[in-house]
Amino acid sequence: MHLFEFVPVSQLVEGEPRHRRSIYRSAYLDIRLREESAKGSYDYDLIVIGGGSAGLACAKEAVLNGARVACLDYVKPTPTLGTKWGVGGTCVNVGCIPKKLMHQASLLGEAVHEAAAYGWNVDDKIKPDWNKLVQSVQNHIKSVNWVTRVDLRDKKVEYINGLGSFVDSHTLVAKLKSGDRTITAQTFVIAVGGRPRYPDIPGAVEHGITSDDLFSLDREPGKTLVVGAGYIGLECAGFLKGLGYEPTVMVRSIVLRGFDQQMAELVASSMEERGIPFLRKSVPLSVEKQDDGKLLVKYKNTETGEEAEDVFDTVLWAIGRKGLVDDLNLPNAGVTVQKDKIPVDSQEATNVANIYAVGDIIYGKPELTPVAVLAGRLLARRLYGGSTQRMDYNDVATTVFTPLEYACVGLSEEDAVKQYGADEVEVFHGYYKPTEFFIPQKSVRYCYLKAVAERHGDQRVYGLHYLGPVAGEVIQGFAAALKSGLTINTLINTVGIHPTTAEEFTRLTITKRSGLDPTPASCCS
Amino acid sequence: MHLFEFVPVSQLVEGEPRHRRSIYRSAYLDIRLREESAKGSYDYDLIVIGGGSAGLACAKEAVLNGARVACLDYVKPTPTLGTKWGVGGTCVNVGCIPKKLMHQASLLGEAVHEAAAYGWNVDDKIKPDWNKLVQSVQNHIKSVNWVTRVDLRDKKVEYINGLGSFVDSHTLVAKLKSGDRTITAQTFVIAVGGRPRYPDIPGAVEHGITSDDLFSLDREPGKTLVVGAGYIGLECAGFLKGLGYEPTVMVRSIVLRGFDQQMAELVASSMEERGIPFLRKSVPLSVEKQDDGKLLVKYKNTETGEEAEDVFDTVLWAIGRKGLVDDLNLPNAGVTVQKDKIPVDSQEATNVANIYAVGDIIYGKPELTPVAVLAGRLLARRLYGGSTQRMDYNDVATTVFTPLEYACVGLSEEDAVKQYGADEVEVFHGYYKPTEFFIPQKSVRYCYLKAVAERHGDQRVYGLHYLGPVAGEVIQGFAAALKSGLTINTLINTVGIHPTTAEEFTRLTITKRSGLDPTPASCCS
Repeated sequence: MHLFEFVPVSQLVEGEPRHRRSIYRSAYLDIRLREESAKGSYDYDLIVIGGGSAGLACAKEAVLNGARVACLDYVKPTPTLGTKWGVGGTCVNVGCIPKKLMHQASLLGEAVHEAAAYGWNVDDKIKPDWNKLVQSVQNHIKSVNWVTRVDLRDKKVEYINGLGSFVDSHTLVAKLKSGDRTITAQTFVIAVGGRPRYPDIPGAVEHGITSDDLFSLDREPGKTLVVGAGYIGLECAGFLKGLGYEPTVMVRSIVLRGFDQQMAELVASSMEERGIPFLRKSVPLSVEKQDDGKLLVKYKNTETGEEAEDVFDTVLWAIGRKGLVDDLNLPNAGVTVQKDKIPVDSQEATNVANIYAVGDIIYGKPELTPVAVLAGRLLARRLYGGSTQRMDYNDVATTVFTPLEYACVGLSEEDAVKQYGADEVEVFHGYYKPTEFFIPQKSVRYCYLKAVAERHGDQRVYGLHYLGPVAGEVIQGFAAALKSGLTINTLINTVGIHPTTAEEFTRLTITKRSGLDPTPASCCS
Repeated sequence: MHLFEFVPVSQLVEGEPRHRRSIYRSAYLDIRLREESAKGSYDYDLIVIGGGSAGLACAKEAVLNGARVACLDYVKPTPTLGTKWGVGGTCVNVGCIPKKLMHQASLLGEAVHEAAAYGWNVDDKIKPDWNKLVQSVQNHIKSVNWVTRVDLRDKKVEYINGLGSFVDSHTLVAKLKSGDRTITAQTFVIAVGGRPRYPDIPGAVEHGITSDDLFSLDREPGKTLVVGAGYIGLECAGFLKGLGYEPTVMVRSIVLRGFDQQMAELVASSMEERGIPFLRKSVPLSVEKQDDGKLLVKYKNTETGEEAEDVFDTVLWAIGRKGLVDDLNLPNAGVTVQKDKIPVDSQEATNVANIYAVGDIIYGKPELTPVAVLAGRLLARRLYGGSTQRMDYNDVATTVFTPLEYACVGLSEEDAVKQYGADEVEVFHGYYKPTEFFIPQKSVRYCYLKAVAERHGDQRVYGLHYLGPVAGEVIQGFAAALKSGLTINTLINTVGIHPTTAEEFTRLTITKRSGLDPTPASCCS
């Protein structure tokens, strides 16, 4: 890993933007700041509460810009299995990283079957080893935890493994193993993130698990009821199916709320095509453990009121996440809360002057690691680096790592219509056939993409949506393009890279309005 | 496939750009044009010579814009094995498509090994079945050939399977199976492309093959000498290694000429790390067939003059491609030739007023399918659709499908320095570690990327370079971004998609000039 190196100020490169230059300065500043901080009336310039993506990024950047910083991190064990983890927050421990690895494991299972079609003499009647997979995933997580600790030490962030609770707007009690410790700071950044919700039904907590438990589960998940069809539910159902288990997805209302609904339904259909049943308009009523150890789930259809039941090995709650405001004692500090989250202004300031919040805990913003990282870093630069740059929460790209991946950036079709009116929005769309899919005869039925754009004028692109392989890799560059003012004219005059699936964006010429068939024409001409 | 549908003019959507509107008009125009063409003094408005990517795109677009078009296509068999193929040109038959499929087969072999690391109980001592692979690849090609023929028929392009040769600037003799046929046209588009060169040494033609033969080779390639380190040579060596054969690459001077040389050397090193030997500064002297059927290759080091020899099962020439000007009898039409290619102006016009050229046959432009397609289509629109839009050959993205793929768009570092001066160019760079590589412990040594940019001012991005998985998918969107005026500021403020490798572009903060270590810092904060 990159260990911090001392660079004397004399070697600093003129012309480097300030925020980059500051990276090289910090060892020098470190000495000066120890002296300065001693003068302050608080223990720290900054206490960051939460050692996840947002908190760590903010804490490290604050130190690099001269602040004396402590970062509190504490993980409450899950209620039934008692799962806990190290520093790094949701992403590293029970989020992006383990889910991407399990998704990858699932894709590699598919790849083994495809390899046979391409002529490899592989026996494709394969089975996964859940325990080996979990062990590999956990080993990787542990190594990231370790690197994170080293990185914090190198960057002179004081790491405190304790649960923070406000006494007043400048004072915190940290509950440590060794007892309570009261600490003060000029400024606080709340970056405590969230944890999965449990439904309020009998047996939910005793018999159900969440994504907090799944990636370290000490037994095969088997037949699994995934309750919830947000991206976490769909991703878990997707890789469980790919690993050979039998997930069922229970959907209360809609799939992938907040995402383009045409794309969301295509994602759901692509999963159904792979044999994942969706129980629509259904809510769970209770979970009971049978004598054979299996879980009996009673549920009802919200439209017909009809009740039904089925037996599962695992019940996974993926019904949403709750901001971790409760333990903070926010009333003591006077910080306002809204629906378990903290509202902030465009500078990530709460209603209390010296208290800020970033990451999943803030109200009404995308709950995504890179958003948290960038917002945390920019906040630190504004607080300590003289920067005025604010976080732009618009046009943030994201990917749903379902077996056929969905990535998007910018507006959904319905949001564009809502914002600009149907007459002012043009949607270009097309199905496509990835070259690699032909030989293993993989389904191309849901390989689809669309561009939502201004109808008149320059035809500025409002949003791009892609369902297909390696969706995140495909969309990332287009996110930079959108931020650079991409228009349809530029898009279709960008020369493709052949044969890729990303090039299909440059071949989008059929509008929904035309009513023409959006299935693919020729391959290479 | 998309079959053309009749749309009455009354249903045409106002506000659609002309070139898109014209697509919907053509059935209507078709009737009108048959009448008009009868009046003309030539057999056709346009004869396109060459049924590859450029020719087909141009021919189809010309018809859609109202022209009466014939397209000649003819494939001369390879000199020794007599390999030939159907309509569609190099890309479909002996280029992008088969090479991508063999590359994919090779990656799937890797995936089987990775699957084992992720816990799948797969026996990873696997062998490829070359004949099955070739058969699968050829089956796919045949299906594309068939679709192409149907597409031409639907789009009313007259397909003539004959070798064209100019009589004068408006007259061609097409050599058909059934004998010669003389045809005339107002306008010609030369899109004959190129074929691999053979070196002028004993045994080269009798005993060597080229990429024209490789994808349909009826025996395993075995130990293969790949002569040439352009992208074709490296790609072939890469997938042969991945398929379990033993390629050696012979390099006369530099690797990947025309590409960024730092990246080129990293590509070569990543291949050497996988066990592909590179014979540097070497040229072949002769190829002899031994009694045991193997090929004895004598070669020499161009620096030391030292001679050496080795025995191979296959010798593959990948030393460059030759434009197919010879059979055209261009002097009869008065068309100028330069180094087996045809120079054209910014409108793709040759020195003869009614003769144009597009695709690989033109002098000094990228030899890439999507370039050919777009240039052919734009030419047809200018000729028959009233368009004035010219092809922009700048900032064309491309990918080298070596096992670790390399993709780039815009300027190489050296070209940027040449163009703007070293003091005015800033290079941001970094190594990175793909999340998926950890569990199977794949080498991350050559996972590297860089952005070449303006040093001062807005820090406009001149070029992006990426070495890693699915490089084409990663770079395509950034190509649209570059075309939209991407700056470093926009790039590093684009929110990443986590965890992807493409997001590493948004984390590029270390400049070469700073001398700082470009190895990765923390994972998710």
